Amino acid sequence: MFDTQSFVLKGDICFSTDPQTLKTIPDGYLVCLDGRCAGAFSQLPGQYQNLPLLDCAGKLIVPGLVDLHVHAPQYSYRALGMDLELLEWLETHTFPEESKYRDVAYARKMYPRFVEDLVKGPNTRACIFATVHNDATLHLMDLLEDSGLCTMVGKVNMDRNSPDSLREADAQASLDATRDWLGRLAGRYQRTKPILTPRFVPSCTDELMQGLGQIQKEYHLPVQSHLSENPSEIAWVQELCPQSRFYGDAYRMFGLFGGADCPTIMAHCVYSSDEEVELMKQQGVFIAHCPASNTNLASGIAPVRRYLTEGIPTGLGSDVAGGTHTSIFRTMADAIQVSKLRWRLQDNSLAPLTAAEAFYLGTLGGGAFFGKVGTFLTEYDFDALVIDDSRYTPQGSRSIPERLERTLYLSDDRDLKHKFAAGRQLF
Amino acid sequence: MFDTQSFVLKGDICFSTDPQTLKTIPDGYLVCLDGRCAGAFSQLPGQYQNLPLLDCAGKLIVPGLVDLHVHAPQYSYRALGMDLELLEWLETHTFPEESKYRDVAYARKMYPRFVEDLVKGPNTRACIFATVHNDATLHLMDLLEDSGLCTMVGKVNMDRNSPDSLREADAQASLDATRDWLGRLAGRYQRTKPILTPRFVPSCTDELMQGLGQIQKEYHLPVQSHLSENPSEIAWVQELCPQSRFYGDAYRMFGLFGGADCPTIMAHCVYSSDEEVELMKQQGVFIAHCPASNTNLASGIAPVRRYLTEGIPTGLGSDVAGGTHTSIFRTMADAIQVSKLRWRLQDNSLAPLTAAEAFYLGTLGGGAFFGKVGTFLTEYDFDALVIDDSRYTPQGSRSIPERLERTLYLSDDRDLKHKFAAGRQLF
Repeated sequence: MFDTQSFVLKGDICFSTDPQTLKTIPDGYLVCLDGRCAGAFSQLPGQYQNLPLLDCAGKLIVPGLVDLHVHAPQYSYRALGMDLELLEWLETHTFPEESKYRDVAYARKMYPRFVEDLVKGPNTRACIFATVHNDATLHLMDLLEDSGLCTMVGKVNMDRNSPDSLREADAQASLDATRDWLGRLAGRYQRTKPILTPRFVPSCTDELMQGLGQIQKEYHLPVQSHLSENPSEIAWVQELCPQSRFYGDAYRMFGLFGGADCPTIMAHCVYSSDEEVELMKQQGVFIAHCPASNTNLASGIAPVRRYLTEGIPTGLGSDVAGGTHTSIFRTMADAIQVSKLRWRLQDNSLAPLTAAEAFYLGTLGGGAFFGKVGTFLTEYDFDALVIDDSRYTPQGSRSIPERLERTLYLSDDRDLKHKFAAGRQLF
Repeated sequence: MFDTQSFVLKGDICFSTDPQTLKTIPDGYLVCLDGRCAGAFSQLPGQYQNLPLLDCAGKLIVPGLVDLHVHAPQYSYRALGMDLELLEWLETHTFPEESKYRDVAYARKMYPRFVEDLVKGPNTRACIFATVHNDATLHLMDLLEDSGLCTMVGKVNMDRNSPDSLREADAQASLDATRDWLGRLAGRYQRTKPILTPRFVPSCTDELMQGLGQIQKEYHLPVQSHLSENPSEIAWVQELCPQSRFYGDAYRMFGLFGGADCPTIMAHCVYSSDEEVELMKQQGVFIAHCPASNTNLASGIAPVRRYLTEGIPTGLGSDVAGGTHTSIFRTMADAIQVSKLRWRLQDNSLAPLTAAEAFYLGTLGGGAFFGKVGTFLTEYDFDALVIDDSRYTPQGSRSIPERLERTLYLSDDRDLKHKFAAGRQLF
């Protein structure tokens, strides 16, 4: 284990520089200086010869993966109740389980398993929904900070259309709790950042949204929420916010939909209208594409090819527990697969995603939300995975892009040998 | 390890008796007598008290899984070239790789990995495509026989529309080779049966199909092939067999499409016409539903709900390497997932599959092709798995159906503790 943030990894290096371009360096050198990438080289430049070197010859070295959308309290019941649609599943499974986090003892029991499994897997970055509860959310943030992962975590806001056990008393109570949460975490973390998290429009009154817009401006916080996941949900939002022109507009009205000072992730965007897509583009809103979740909850398939073509910033989300696996490798394979079904069944003008494009989405695509993250260009944060793919690909038998493709489909945590987040070695 | 075929397993038992009915016996007893199931009980009946007992308390005990469609020589390149459609993928990856099995040394190098991984996984039964080559196919059958798995294996027939390196010289050469293969395997195996395997109509001349129909009658062999997987393929069959009324009719014309003395599996059936479905129903043709493959090759989604409702015998196929994983648990999850997308995108009159239905398809549904296989009713062959699901479900926290649902989505070979096929313990 390195206890320094300046070192060299040697192995078969692979990273994206744009959606279509996969750079590969067989038996190359990847240099980390003070936690940042100083480049990937075929020959180790002289000035780095004295750095400690970890020889991972024959193994794949790729950037750490980025999960733009995951619900920590849902991890305990992933892969359950998958025979239900979104709104029914929320009532049956999600809300009752999340209510339990009112008791911080429950969070202390449940959150460690989520964090431990996240550490074991290939993601180095995640944007995480917690619950409405401050104590439990801060406990989760403590665990994440200690883990070495780099995350953004949201105390959830919800003051309507949810069971009494989970709903906050009113907008003011929710806003007060949010300020309390922000006060308590100030200065407490290096790798764990707060992100404003109105659950979704149906859960938040206009008054709450207005207040969150105010907090966003005061604290310059990023924002995460859900958008245009399911036809029934969209119709419901239109009823609840008759003054909005479309679903995304119901966030924009309150200053919670992107723009220079309000980095925003919207999960799903399966049914975004042309107007909504145009607004996301103008505002630089990130889309968290969650293919497994959109499949499991029978929501549909998002037109990711279109988002890529139009240059809308897009990454991947596991959306556990709508999705069943936290690994963004698995999500990359899911994204490719559903894009093929969409092409075949819904719209053959949008070509399926390639393996290279899916890899881009799960690294650099989502990484951009965290700044310079998700590739091995110089100055990028040093997030890296060392993968022993010999369990499914005999050494020397395949090219690096082929090995990468197989890794998307076939790898699991057994194959992950080393992991680095922002220059720090997790194992 | 039991060296007897009469014993008792104790644990949390779960099996299907029909597509909708899941029987569960918590902390129950499952009795194997002479390789057959003698029943599943809450209390162990007196007459079995003296049998050796394996105490698997707290673990799940379910029937072994059945893979109705898998290509052994394609295992080595699973999860590669997934950016291609069916016919292009065959040309680029499948045919060149299969050609190598002309050399039995290549088969000796490659097939052990397929068989070893199959043993480690949850399938106890499989219907397997080999290649056109007799020596390699017999080597595969030797390995399978020694493994303890129960399989049907086909030497493939193909005498047109395939590269010179793989195509058999002509119909007569293919038929002669088939008789040679059948002669060499006669009396050689107990658990490994031959199955006639015309690759698919585009690969087989009418003369070859006619001769295979003759061999089928002489030897009373079962048959496996592909049907209505892809729109381009269907159009091609219509060109090649203008006298057929539809794709399946091009098998029927030669006596290779079900009926009392010709048990037949057709893989895919994504685009079967009403007439084709009606004929399958009349002839009792089994459908091997291959959801992962149909997704990866962008073929589409088969209407499995319809097949279940109409009572057409249906099971699941991994279709490696169209599919990437041999585990039929994974295929069950895939089947549920694609059925949801089909419901949402294509035809909302066909409800998505439930977890119980997918489990039925992968056990009793496909098992029926092997006789009394796929459940724990009395007289059924004793195929069983013991699963330690504590890696993803803390002991005592969930009902058996919930644990089963999670096992479909979350289990892998690490969780499989014991495996029995036809009464024999594999581990």
